[in-house]
Amino acid sequence: MKHRFQPTHYYNTLGGHEPVDHIRDGDTLITTTVDARGYDAAGNQVAQRGNPQTGPFYVEGAAPGDTLAVQIERITPSREHGWNSTVAAAHVVDPGYVKELPEGILADWCVDVGRGVATLVEPVTKIGVFSVPIKPMLGCFGVAPKGGQALGTGTSAENGGNMDYRGFCVGATAYFPVFAEGALFYLGDGHAQQGDGEILGSSIEISMDVQVTLRVLKGKQINWPRGEDAEWIFACGNARPLDQALQHATTEMLRWLQEDYGLDARGAHILLGHTVRYDIGNVFDPAYTVVCKVPKSVLPR
Amino acid sequence: MKHRFQPTHYYNTLGGHEPVDHIRDGDTLITTTVDARGYDAAGNQVAQRGNPQTGPFYVEGAAPGDTLAVQIERITPSREHGWNSTVAAAHVVDPGYVKELPEGILADWCVDVGRGVATLVEPVTKIGVFSVPIKPMLGCFGVAPKGGQALGTGTSAENGGNMDYRGFCVGATAYFPVFAEGALFYLGDGHAQQGDGEILGSSIEISMDVQVTLRVLKGKQINWPRGEDAEWIFACGNARPLDQALQHATTEMLRWLQEDYGLDARGAHILLGHTVRYDIGNVFDPAYTVVCKVPKSVLPR
Amino acid sequence: MKHRFQPTHYYNTLGGHEPVDHIRDGDTLITTTVDARGYDAAGNQVAQRGNPQTGPFYVEGAAPGDTLAVQIERITPSREHGWNSTVAAAHVVDPGYVKELPEGILADWCVDVGRGVATLVEPVTKIGVFSVPIKPMLGCFGVAPKGGQALGTGTSAENGGNMDYRGFCVGATAYFPVFAEGALFYLGDGHAQQGDGEILGSSIEISMDVQVTLRVLKGKQINWPRGEDAEWIFACGNARPLDQALQHATTEMLRWLQEDYGLDARGAHILLGHTVRYDIGNVFDPAYTVVCKVPKSVLPR
Amino acid sequence: MKHRFQPTHYYNTLGGHEPVDHIRDGDTLITTTVDARGYDAAGNQVAQRGNPQTGPFYVEGAAPGDTLAVQIERITPSREHGWNSTVAAAHVVDPGYVKELPEGILADWCVDVGRGVATLVEPVTKIGVFSVPIKPMLGCFGVAPKGGQALGTGTSAENGGNMDYRGFCVGATAYFPVFAEGALFYLGDGHAQQGDGEILGSSIEISMDVQVTLRVLKGKQINWPRGEDAEWIFACGNARPLDQALQHATTEMLRWLQEDYGLDARGAHILLGHTVRYDIGNVFDPAYTVVCKVPKSVLPR
Repeated sequence: MKHRFQPTHYYNTLGGHEPVDHIRDGDTLITTTVDARGYDAAGNQVAQRGNPQTGPFYVEGAAPGDTLAVQIERITPSREHGWNSTVAAAHVVDPGYVKELPEGILADWCVDVGRGVATLVEPVTKIGVFSVPIKPMLGCFGVAPKGGQALGTGTSAENGGNMDYRGFCVGATAYFPVFAEGALFYLGDGHAQQGDGEILGSSIEISMDVQVTLRVLKGKQINWPRGEDAEWIFACGNARPLDQALQHATTEMLRWLQEDYGLDARGAHILLGHTVRYDIGNVFDPAYTVVCKVPKSVLPR
Repeated sequence: MKHRFQPTHYYNTLGGHEPVDHIRDGDTLITTTVDARGYDAAGNQVAQRGNPQTGPFYVEGAAPGDTLAVQIERITPSREHGWNSTVAAAHVVDPGYVKELPEGILADWCVDVGRGVATLVEPVTKIGVFSVPIKPMLGCFGVAPKGGQALGTGTSAENGGNMDYRGFCVGATAYFPVFAEGALFYLGDGHAQQGDGEILGSSIEISMDVQVTLRVLKGKQINWPRGEDAEWIFACGNARPLDQALQHATTEMLRWLQEDYGLDARGAHILLGHTVRYDIGNVFDPAYTVVCKVPKSVLPR
Repeated sequence: MKHRFQPTHYYNTLGGHEPVDHIRDGDTLITTTVDARGYDAAGNQVAQRGNPQTGPFYVEGAAPGDTLAVQIERITPSREHGWNSTVAAAHVVDPGYVKELPEGILADWCVDVGRGVATLVEPVTKIGVFSVPIKPMLGCFGVAPKGGQALGTGTSAENGGNMDYRGFCVGATAYFPVFAEGALFYLGDGHAQQGDGEILGSSIEISMDVQVTLRVLKGKQINWPRGEDAEWIFACGNARPLDQALQHATTEMLRWLQEDYGLDARGAHILLGHTVRYDIGNVFDPAYTVVCKVPKSVLPR
Repeated sequence: MKHRFQPTHYYNTLGGHEPVDHIRDGDTLITTTVDARGYDAAGNQVAQRGNPQTGPFYVEGAAPGDTLAVQIERITPSREHGWNSTVAAAHVVDPGYVKELPEGILADWCVDVGRGVATLVEPVTKIGVFSVPIKPMLGCFGVAPKGGQALGTGTSAENGGNMDYRGFCVGATAYFPVFAEGALFYLGDGHAQQGDGEILGSSIEISMDVQVTLRVLKGKQINWPRGEDAEWIFACGNARPLDQALQHATTEMLRWLQEDYGLDARGAHILLGHTVRYDIGNVFDPAYTVVCKVPKSVLPR
């Protein structure tokens, strides 16, 4: 069933709020998100900056120990104007190179959904006219965190959050471990496009029209956000430093291969070792995101 | 000019040795490498384990401050038998998961160069028959390191070494900063195939027939190994932890974009931020390797 | 004025709760804390495990941008029985050594406040009779975090929390940046004694009688918890990995030396470089704590 | 027997050189070192900058698998003039704070060995007259590294090297694992005084008169440099990041407690957990040094 929701207020933490609406297991949620600074489709600031979230949505039947599946069916920029910062974060370059970073300004982008292209407006740089194909994604989404915490929308954890992973786009399904009754699903921080690592600290930030279908996988327990698309299954580790994020993602994938694909430990290790691809979701946020991927083509049937 | 060299002994450090041969700038070197444990094409152990290297080759005209370009034209397994370890390294999984790792054994692979496939032999695992397409690469190669050091072939640094990056395959050109007269080029540690990160600690290890063309870029100074192939330019950072390796790679790419592609700082940052892909070369060796890539299609002409 | 408070319930996050009581600026709070698993002075479990906190206390006049000073006047074990875990965390030893770690059991300690000694009960180890001098401290205390977050009592951040630093004992004054109206002060997780790093994951965990005097430093803005005792001033950095925690602590100290001690930048760097001592508060919790200390004897008057 | 050696040349790697002299097991070596930039007692530059080393000394009887004990009996500045850099390294402060670091200049120190004090000369800073007590130490010393490597004197590894730990002063005995015949002992980089971490990148750098007694512990195998003084035993871990250095040091200490002090695993963990102190030797060099210390007073007899 389709379930439309028009947000009137937004939150800057995951956790700590009463649900704004209830969704039935299997329902499709159609809603909107504002950009990372709280500007909506009309260009008005309606929420506080820092990845304000639509939600939380209480998903009927979801309980701690379950998994919430979020099938991403639509993420479409709802206006033409996007923006982003223009300088790599000081912590992604050599410490001795920080003094050579240019001054940080915001750049404007014109996002043409029809043509599928974003173009830098008045770049004031020798780069000249610069366009990139858009591939809209959700930078920050997830469920209420464990232990009754309320975590800022700048960071991520076992419950998802600000993972800024470009793989969370249309065609992907995300899986979140449920830590609270009703899961309490939040979403926001849409990007029209993003490189690996979100190294500029923002991407092409824009408001979105979003459609997702939510399903509860009863009794299915996972430890970290997972996902899949037509080609890959993937597990996300969210932590600092990258080494630890990678450990979480790799461990989660090893578990997955053994639990769901009938592999023994040695088989899982061999399969992973020879086919794994790692993506760096973000290397900007307080918790970094490393994604451990395995192509579906090599998975046992 | 083609230059054939048949090694009679091998070294387990980069640096610290007299050259085994001299090569002219622009010459093509045709030689062989033994596998990571020192076994040659005939299956005989002829060198000490630990990525024994063919070389070093003195490249005429190369001097500190130059760059050595290594165009990879051929890396072909020179026998059918490959081997690899079968368990992910303890440091790539959660510390609390280490006790669940299976026992480490070596697995044998049958490498069929004609069909382009490697098949696991007697897997003793539920994975059953398991084949992967081969994509031969050089795990460890580079030049003498800076400061008169001699660095073990298990690690990597500014001079290259054991980067275990699957992008160093046929069709790629590697660039190394020269720190010693003649550059002193070493190569070895061929892999028939490898996943990201070399998380098992070895890949499909095998002896190789190799052909590379060596060119000296006089007065071209770089800080870290670089490379390019048909689709990408890429810079390697070699360090622990991953965060630092990524800093080196990102900084090197920002320099590259400004020095060779006519971009100002802001343009380089914008271009990189929106198009960068990071690969994890290895997350196993003493120094990890992170690769910062930019598609050639977005580079200014 | 002395202000006695007997807790009836406890919280497992910092942030997210209404105050249990109001305290005037300058008042002395006399209260009790339960141990890390929620056991009180009588040995009854009255709270949920995971460093349950007494509080929060609303301190009159404290507002975002201020600093809360917490002078620690008394931390006395309120019973004889302490406990702790007995095995170093998997992440503080070499990954390859994890399989050699013994099984984790809890050990009991007899804490003799009069003699100032804790003695291991029935050690079941060759260590035999083993006693250590006690030096009671607060493992987890602080104020509500920024951005309306509610952070679990297992971790720490700019607002304090589970820093597990043995320097937070009687005679020390802690300083916390205020992020919420009333500061909302929490305290708990008393340790009778602790080594550096809390590497076992717990120390001698015990319930406490606590007395602290709370003062609001209006308009005094700090970024990280600070402290001082008779001999040192110190700044805490809470983050992973240790490198980042050390960066936060060092930066905070450099600021402190310039803002409050009249030093120019170069003078602050020279003084710090030659006299700094670093303590590792904890290397166990989700965020580690590194403490940057300067002896009061070298500070400009 | 006393063995005097006056160096005529110096090396900038550990490993890769023929011994300059042979020493008998148990002999006392009396020699001199130049400062980190190669200046000797007379103020003349006689060696290349970067911690040039006196040695290597071949110690009779030392073979791989043994341990070399180096009892430090004298480290005395051999001139009055010391120098050091004045700005904390970019990587020990927050990345966002790097742009606020002052310009790096060298400062001169007047080192008064008789009074035991070093005084900053012409400070050009508000710090005014600034003196610190001297405590001379060896910043870089050790033996040839494993695998026939030659490692630069800027870094450290299992064989010691540039650990920059202030605990290596008179009264301490250092222990190094032997990796080459004769151990090949090097020493240099004397500091008149140093804070934790050598965060300025240099300390009060000065030439030294040194006396050490060298003993071979046949068949005693260790993994990392160890040391002891009147009060402590300590183990050094040399690696990046700090987390890994700490893992090495902690693991080495756990082994030590079990191998030499008759403790079972659980006893070693309990003793360590409650009494450990960690020192940060350096957080500046390519490999950081973390020291894991246990007071001798708690060791089983």
